[in-house]
Amino acid sequence: MTMNRVVRLKSRPMGMVKRDDFEVADEPMPEPGEGEFRVKVEYVSLDPAMRGWISPGKSYVPPVELGAVMRSFAAGIVDQSNHPDYKAGDAVAGMLGVQHYALSKGERCFKVDPSKAPLERWIGGLGMPGQTAYCGLLEIGKPKPGETVVVSAASGAVGSLVGQIAKIQGARAVGIAGGPEKCRYVVDELGFDACVDYKGGNLAEELKAACPDGIDVYFENVGGKHREAAIESMRPNGRAALCGMIEQYNDTEPRPGPTNLIQIVGKSLRLQGFIVSNYFQHLGEFFEEMGPLIKGGKMKWEETVEDGIENAPKAFLNLFKGANFGKMLVKIGPDKAV
Amino acid sequence: MTMNRVVRLKSRPMGMVKRDDFEVADEPMPEPGEGEFRVKVEYVSLDPAMRGWISPGKSYVPPVELGAVMRSFAAGIVDQSNHPDYKAGDAVAGMLGVQHYALSKGERCFKVDPSKAPLERWIGGLGMPGQTAYCGLLEIGKPKPGETVVVSAASGAVGSLVGQIAKIQGARAVGIAGGPEKCRYVVDELGFDACVDYKGGNLAEELKAACPDGIDVYFENVGGKHREAAIESMRPNGRAALCGMIEQYNDTEPRPGPTNLIQIVGKSLRLQGFIVSNYFQHLGEFFEEMGPLIKGGKMKWEETVEDGIENAPKAFLNLFKGANFGKMLVKIGPDKAV
Repeated sequence: MTMNRVVRLKSRPMGMVKRDDFEVADEPMPEPGEGEFRVKVEYVSLDPAMRGWISPGKSYVPPVELGAVMRSFAAGIVDQSNHPDYKAGDAVAGMLGVQHYALSKGERCFKVDPSKAPLERWIGGLGMPGQTAYCGLLEIGKPKPGETVVVSAASGAVGSLVGQIAKIQGARAVGIAGGPEKCRYVVDELGFDACVDYKGGNLAEELKAACPDGIDVYFENVGGKHREAAIESMRPNGRAALCGMIEQYNDTEPRPGPTNLIQIVGKSLRLQGFIVSNYFQHLGEFFEEMGPLIKGGKMKWEETVEDGIENAPKAFLNLFKGANFGKMLVKIGPDKAV
Repeated sequence: MTMNRVVRLKSRPMGMVKRDDFEVADEPMPEPGEGEFRVKVEYVSLDPAMRGWISPGKSYVPPVELGAVMRSFAAGIVDQSNHPDYKAGDAVAGMLGVQHYALSKGERCFKVDPSKAPLERWIGGLGMPGQTAYCGLLEIGKPKPGETVVVSAASGAVGSLVGQIAKIQGARAVGIAGGPEKCRYVVDELGFDACVDYKGGNLAEELKAACPDGIDVYFENVGGKHREAAIESMRPNGRAALCGMIEQYNDTEPRPGPTNLIQIVGKSLRLQGFIVSNYFQHLGEFFEEMGPLIKGGKMKWEETVEDGIENAPKAFLNLFKGANFGKMLVKIGPDKAV
């Protein structure tokens, strides 16, 4: 008998998320009810934002309930359907959760075309990370040709695309990443103009040296000293698109903000936070412009693929250690039988 | 023989500005050269921004040089002119400095019409503070009818106008001010819907209680705990117009920023700094819309008028103690003769 292997939230982490905050269980296969369909999941996306989803308190989405299947983006193939718009064999991506089989009514889920790009691309470059990079950079950052764009976590799923899109716009792309290997990759493989190693020494000084004309657009994934260093070098009328602050997602104490916020006034800076769903109206442009580039391999990024859903908690923890390279995915293993 | 009494910057303050950082001197009358005119100053404006102008290092304007006449807005009457566009008797306002007589080539100076409003109004409600309130609120904050606007330093020159303009826009206006007297004034005289006393207790809690629907627009004059409390209560898609951070202008050590900046991401907030000169293209609308209201006394604000230029340094210091009420002006005393 085939079982559904699922990852459920067992406890709300205080501070750094732990392996034991999740439990893996083999459960009876869910059967689609009226208006529902069932997806055999093939790839699960692990994203820093998921840390926020398991914190208590209100945010842009309600927190994952204790005991519930962990929320996540995922992609797979419909295998049973009582939904008029979906039929068995349809490829879909959406908020399907960390599990082998997911039921859906079609909410926060959409059909994808596997002939245009492999399934995992639809939760990567063509999915939330790609949409985040594109919309945040172009709608908030609005880089002009010749301007300097800086992105933190530059080798990550979002950051690696931000720099490449900046280059397409004719801007200069400077990354911040952790360690010489990631920095080399960002420059040599992704084609950024420069990359600063935040583990290397004085981030503010090195970022300033890497951006002799100052920073026009800062795309924020990390927070903390990264942001402080960026503000220090931002030019008048600079724009910061605040996408995430992974450095502090596991904090237990409130962390003081940057000491140089006064520069926001004197330099007329704009700091704007966003979540990708603010920009769903721009997804058509995104698919039109980026789709062919991503499908054709013109946009590069790394994927770290973990095998087996039982390894999802460990892989999720690695996100916060900088252990992954690029987009973190879990490939669902074979069905479980009992 | 008539002398020119001037206030010069003697030393760059470290930390809180001191009386002795300025010196008052009686000097020979300046004579206008070719293309110059001379203004007999009547009112000098003292503004928090002047603290930034005497700090070392680059900002949106170069710092006042040691030994130079202290930079300030002022208004007066042309008494001699070798400039084709200005003649004796013209009323002018602009960057004339803290002195009885100022030379100008017309840069950062403009003619005003004393029949439309008394001279001091052109460096107050119709001048930089009024323009700052109007442009910052409407161009960055963009309050919609029914939204909640919060302004810090609500009894001040800028803040008092921000709340009144918010009311004209159909928004709810909530102030933050120091002490029960200022709070009463803000509600009873200026017509704000509520005012929170930041000296009263828990600012974040009280601000939350005063804004049960959350804050849509925050107009920042103060910084520090004010801003942290505002971010805490800001609604999704809230806008913060950052005009100044008077609380930290006299800091000697970098001051950590708010601990809750992560909310900028989750709530998709926009924090935008500005200086009024960014919006000079909107001054026509400002004069058209606000001019009649200000001239007609429909917009209310207090002025604290200090008599005699020799008292300007003391009055300037009072700005940072919250000792003034509304706009701080110095009325120039009679000519000095030696």
